Amino acid sequence: MDDREFGSALSDLTGDRVHGAGELARACLQILALSARGAPASGGQGLADQLTRRCDRLMAARPSMAPIINLLSRWRADLKSSTGLPLPILRETTAASAEQLIAEARGAAGAAAALTAEHIGDGKRILTHSLSSTVLEVFQRLKDRGVSALVTESRPLNEGYILARRLAEWGIPVELITDAQIALAAAQADMALVGADTRLHDGDLVNKAGTCLLALAARDNEIPFYVCCESFKCRREPRGTLELEEMEAAELGAPDLPGIRVRNVYFDITPARLISGWIDETGLQR
Amino acid sequence: MDDREFGSALSDLTGDRVHGAGELARACLQILALSARGAPASGGQGLADQLTRRCDRLMAARPSMAPIINLLSRWRADLKSSTGLPLPILRETTAASAEQLIAEARGAAGAAAALTAEHIGDGKRILTHSLSSTVLEVFQRLKDRGVSALVTESRPLNEGYILARRLAEWGIPVELITDAQIALAAAQADMALVGADTRLHDGDLVNKAGTCLLALAARDNEIPFYVCCESFKCRREPRGTLELEEMEAAELGAPDLPGIRVRNVYFDITPARLISGWIDETGLQR
Repeated sequence: MDDREFGSALSDLTGDRVHGAGELARACLQILALSARGAPASGGQGLADQLTRRCDRLMAARPSMAPIINLLSRWRADLKSSTGLPLPILRETTAASAEQLIAEARGAAGAAAALTAEHIGDGKRILTHSLSSTVLEVFQRLKDRGVSALVTESRPLNEGYILARRLAEWGIPVELITDAQIALAAAQADMALVGADTRLHDGDLVNKAGTCLLALAARDNEIPFYVCCESFKCRREPRGTLELEEMEAAELGAPDLPGIRVRNVYFDITPARLISGWIDETGLQR
Repeated sequence: MDDREFGSALSDLTGDRVHGAGELARACLQILALSARGAPASGGQGLADQLTRRCDRLMAARPSMAPIINLLSRWRADLKSSTGLPLPILRETTAASAEQLIAEARGAAGAAAALTAEHIGDGKRILTHSLSSTVLEVFQRLKDRGVSALVTESRPLNEGYILARRLAEWGIPVELITDAQIALAAAQADMALVGADTRLHDGDLVNKAGTCLLALAARDNEIPFYVCCESFKCRREPRGTLELEEMEAAELGAPDLPGIRVRNVYFDITPARLISGWIDETGLQR
């Protein structure tokens, strides 16, 4: 992966509005594995410097997403401990380290999904928001167990449509709603379930804007609100440095007029007090 | 207004997704005034029968909207008490009755807006949802008093864009958000303010889907949630007969696939316990 290819991959990552934080973290590791094997370098130190710079740029691209920081920090530590190795061995070692982390993260997400499906059990009507690959896997595991889904469109880019289509292909009955109908849907659901972009230090949840409304509606309707994600989603830094990403205003398709500032903040924070439980690869934590 | 013209007006009323209940109720009365003056009839009894039928069809067209029921019931009572009058006098009496009710309803809405503006006072940042002509009038009254607005787009048809444009034309600073960003916006607002389609007997509010989420977010952020509307919006019938209108699924623009049922319920119910106060033409009621 040369500089031009890396630049293009970085730009895709920055602009990606559809995949969740877990998938994007794994995509970053894939970029680093390709870089380790294929970035032009004349010697071991040159490659190490190059990979460190690429790793830092990937970490800076999506600051709201803890798993990118966590997994890439671990990879960066592995890279540091490999300094001094000859070029071909450094390439193989650091690429293998990235691939190992991908497998570990994927395994953790899969285990979280399996435990969540087990906890939910048969015949439930589940209300969800946005598109989480882990939540998708929960539905896949429950598809022959009488599950049905209430799915929000998830403005501005409507990734809920992708989720609805996948669930329908598996034969899961789906009701697709506007985000504005969340309170109506919560009154008909057995539970709310979402993935996470980040779990904050104090147990608050950073996820797609609208998630906090879902949690409020769940609480008001006395149904549980669960978050399903692998523990790599935990952010260790204190709240103070948290930045909620804001994307292009044009994504809304709203009138662009003087005096109107169109806001497109992608994430909101759901306070821990509204969360019935987190389910990660180690099980349910209340 | 002959039968063809009436049919067309009725169809416009049924399909109207942009105007609030108060405006539509006044539009119904305008249709009845035109019918009283111009519906073809050979005698007084024929006209009275014709007008009764038209009134009933208008009342049935938008069952979620109490002001249509309230104002048209009053007009129907006036019509009944006019039976036996000669045709030309019946025409004038019933048309004048409709116009009198329009003036009364408009005056009540205007008074509610004036009292709301007075209650709110200077320099407030107001979060609102959907498009209410009464709320619009509140903003107009506050436009030189340092007011600013947080406006939701209000899916599926985004009538919030109309509101945002009007406010910007008056020089009011506007931030326009997706409905999914309501919790983020509530954290920045001084208060939430909406109009009403209907005030239920028990003090619950029927308004555009998403309003209940706004009330939940307001409560969670400890800002007041006010409803501003004239008292004609009160529904006297018990809750049992309440129907929340559902519109065409195609309005969402969502994928139309087997296994996916697209829902487009236009109204939700905000429980009285989440409402800080109602402001009508008689003032604030908590």
